[in-house]
Amino acid sequence: MNFHLLARSSLAAASKRPISKNVAYRLSAARCLSTSAIPGEPAGPRMVTSPVPGPKVKNGLAKLDKFFDTTSAGLLVDYEKSLGNYLVDADGNQYLDVFAQIASIPLGYNNPRLAQATQTPEMTRAITSRPALGSFPSQDYADLLESGILKAAPKGHTQVFTATTGPDANETAYKAACIWKGTQERGGKEFSQEELTSVMKNQAPGAKKYSILSFKKGFHGRLFGSLSTTRSKAIHKLDVPAFDWPVAPFPQLKYPLEEHEAENRAEEQRCLRETAEILNTADHNIAAIIVEPIQSEGGDNHASPFFFQGLRDLTRENDVLMIVDEVQTGVGATGRMWAHTHWNLSIPPDMVTFSKKAQAAGFYFCRSDLRPDRPYRQFNTWMGDSVRALLFRAIYREIEDSGLINQTAKVGALLYSRIEALQAKYPELVRNLRGKDRGTFIAWDCPKRDQLIALCRSKGVIMGGSGEAAIRLRPMLIFQEHHVNIFLNVLEQTLKELACIKVC
Amino acid sequence: MNFHLLARSSLAAASKRPISKNVAYRLSAARCLSTSAIPGEPAGPRMVTSPVPGPKVKNGLAKLDKFFDTTSAGLLVDYEKSLGNYLVDADGNQYLDVFAQIASIPLGYNNPRLAQATQTPEMTRAITSRPALGSFPSQDYADLLESGILKAAPKGHTQVFTATTGPDANETAYKAACIWKGTQERGGKEFSQEELTSVMKNQAPGAKKYSILSFKKGFHGRLFGSLSTTRSKAIHKLDVPAFDWPVAPFPQLKYPLEEHEAENRAEEQRCLRETAEILNTADHNIAAIIVEPIQSEGGDNHASPFFFQGLRDLTRENDVLMIVDEVQTGVGATGRMWAHTHWNLSIPPDMVTFSKKAQAAGFYFCRSDLRPDRPYRQFNTWMGDSVRALLFRAIYREIEDSGLINQTAKVGALLYSRIEALQAKYPELVRNLRGKDRGTFIAWDCPKRDQLIALCRSKGVIMGGSGEAAIRLRPMLIFQEHHVNIFLNVLEQTLKELACIKVC
Repeated sequence: MNFHLLARSSLAAASKRPISKNVAYRLSAARCLSTSAIPGEPAGPRMVTSPVPGPKVKNGLAKLDKFFDTTSAGLLVDYEKSLGNYLVDADGNQYLDVFAQIASIPLGYNNPRLAQATQTPEMTRAITSRPALGSFPSQDYADLLESGILKAAPKGHTQVFTATTGPDANETAYKAACIWKGTQERGGKEFSQEELTSVMKNQAPGAKKYSILSFKKGFHGRLFGSLSTTRSKAIHKLDVPAFDWPVAPFPQLKYPLEEHEAENRAEEQRCLRETAEILNTADHNIAAIIVEPIQSEGGDNHASPFFFQGLRDLTRENDVLMIVDEVQTGVGATGRMWAHTHWNLSIPPDMVTFSKKAQAAGFYFCRSDLRPDRPYRQFNTWMGDSVRALLFRAIYREIEDSGLINQTAKVGALLYSRIEALQAKYPELVRNLRGKDRGTFIAWDCPKRDQLIALCRSKGVIMGGSGEAAIRLRPMLIFQEHHVNIFLNVLEQTLKELACIKVC
Repeated sequence: MNFHLLARSSLAAASKRPISKNVAYRLSAARCLSTSAIPGEPAGPRMVTSPVPGPKVKNGLAKLDKFFDTTSAGLLVDYEKSLGNYLVDADGNQYLDVFAQIASIPLGYNNPRLAQATQTPEMTRAITSRPALGSFPSQDYADLLESGILKAAPKGHTQVFTATTGPDANETAYKAACIWKGTQERGGKEFSQEELTSVMKNQAPGAKKYSILSFKKGFHGRLFGSLSTTRSKAIHKLDVPAFDWPVAPFPQLKYPLEEHEAENRAEEQRCLRETAEILNTADHNIAAIIVEPIQSEGGDNHASPFFFQGLRDLTRENDVLMIVDEVQTGVGATGRMWAHTHWNLSIPPDMVTFSKKAQAAGFYFCRSDLRPDRPYRQFNTWMGDSVRALLFRAIYREIEDSGLINQTAKVGALLYSRIEALQAKYPELVRNLRGKDRGTFIAWDCPKRDQLIALCRSKGVIMGGSGEAAIRLRPMLIFQEHHVNIFLNVLEQTLKELACIKVC
């Protein structure tokens, strides 16, 4: 079974091998470095233990494991020493981190501008006097949203529901869709007595049999509603009850996209046809579809604007809402603030969910009828978190002021072209490279994926996996050209070793 | 339809009436005050607009409402000026707050000790460099848990899963139960091919038909799994799909408990018998039951230790887990750190969930087999929040150092006895007083509940409602004897007015 990042056991096993090569790597990495533009950021990875994890990480994880499950933990981190693109572990090993806390660190560790944003009276208040934002919002919440979360909103999206995590954002979006559909079907009538009674027993007609359509290999979270739409891997879902909601095929494209246009178009048309059939099946009673711009946990699966435009048309024809899950793709990584803007939709999606690099979570929407018709239908105690709303504002300002989205587009193009060259050199180990023109949101398949991740980590580079065989790169928005060089140096050396293991 | 706190519209309507009485109140409140022991805390409520909400609150909410749903919002708050037990609204009205952001402010607004905890490098790092705690935990996370969240743990509970909100805590507890049951039934065998295939279609045998048993009037959150166990009010559930999970009767006791012992015992026995029948029905396939020590949103419904001991026995006999939802009752309000310790169970509950006044969320557990048998089954990106773990530690230390739980027990006893006296005086308006020996976790029924809340608010006291007719008090742990006087003064004056309206 492949997991999306390497747990301790497999990491330890893999890193036992090429000890002497670590030393060689350290020398060669040091030679190729340019000066960092991030003040105080180290010049490159620096490994002090071999194998990794070293003794302090191992002992520290063993201590933590006494009361907190660490079976999915690969490292124990010294966040005090971590800086910019570099993560430092408890043993002092210093890694170039192109995974960024599962794609969720936007501007680097210990970013000084964000640190400043934590030193304000507003932040202190947000922490010590956390408001129940739906009942007792702060008098500055409107300004905070307008100058932050809403400034970052995709075009046409004028409304926001703030939440706390990705699954919370997605599930509240699902609820908005179900409440919208119920309200629409009721046509202005009051709830019936039967609805009021049956819903307390979790039965129809009060509890509707609506469904949320998702796509094969999609990932939308791990709580009960979101997990029912998650179709990434069995291990994410086994033993957990799920709603009997339909699933549509997601295109399985051939890469590079530009060399397989006709086949890919046919595949996307097939998926659209099958999706249309599902939408037409009355007993599915679909309130909304949810789709990621790039299926991230599921293996970095891409589809073209044609496919998403087709989906948008289908949702409009069938009076079904379209939710775009930008939890992982959002906030700049694809070279746009929001990945779905690559599609040039004539009508924006009905809802766009965000979390991870936004640090704040929630969903944007543009239709005023996605607000329930009366209070307390879409509600919870905290309704988001001002701490993270303040942070998102600081993140957004830094992105704007430093032109980080354009930089990510540019650095991503360089990164892609450099890996493309490696693909030509190591076609066995770098397959199906993807993410062209999608910033640094780059992935490829590698039959020795877990080994590659472990070996790169032992040399000071942290990457992630996704799906069955993909390496996914999720650097921060402060990833620069010289980081590309450092990364490529480690990657190429590791590919060479892996190729040699095969040949020798 | 009654909502659990008053939305703007009804508040405005109710507060139009007794304008001149506000002034009278102000004078009388000022007379009865003792000196506050909380530095800088005002001597009492101070109302500057009539009616409430005043113009700044109204205009501010109208501005916010353009992009954020405020239909459930009663006030707009100046959190800068709010202090201790006092909340100040945007118009400068100063309220004694015995609702505390829906029971979730532990130590008062702008608590200086908590503010100190926000000024540390650890807190800055926790905000700017948020770890994915399941994958890359901080090297100090073990210490942070041991010195905070785990120090506060109920007896016997040695393990913790950290989450972000109440529903997240409950749903991850449900998942732990389902994964535990699936693992147990599989008896050490690998997942079958059929399980691996069917689960991707949300079907059995991979997606289990397990259920979580909850109780009538229980509240456990509003996401899809937690909402399926929430049975508080139709408005919380309408139009949202729900799992077909069973519901058991919760005792409907007569108050005061000590005067109806025999009847109440019979009622509890009836509920236990019916619960036993449900547990014995094989096709319910119950993995766990979830129960609140006092049903909080559902109307402050109590049951005796006898009932909960009986439930514990039933879960043991049926090999079903017992989850105690302490999201609202936990962290001191009942005069114990955890309300379920009032029951003297011989075997602790299997899981105890927390959030609200802990500010951090998650569940405690004691059985090591509630950890899944392999990585990534119970997992998400953030797995909690170090910001809130740091805060909970500071909260816990302050609770311990200042003896706030004993104080709450003592102040609660005074508060109860004072309201008891009012019950004798206004038996029509104060019915079914409950919460004796449960700290300040006190409630009563009032046929004019919404009016009472609105009038008290117009006089500078914020209370909450729950269920159909209950007033619920949820003061902070820094609520002191002199606050009881201030509160009672407003309450009595308002009851007098309401009684007069009836009589006159």
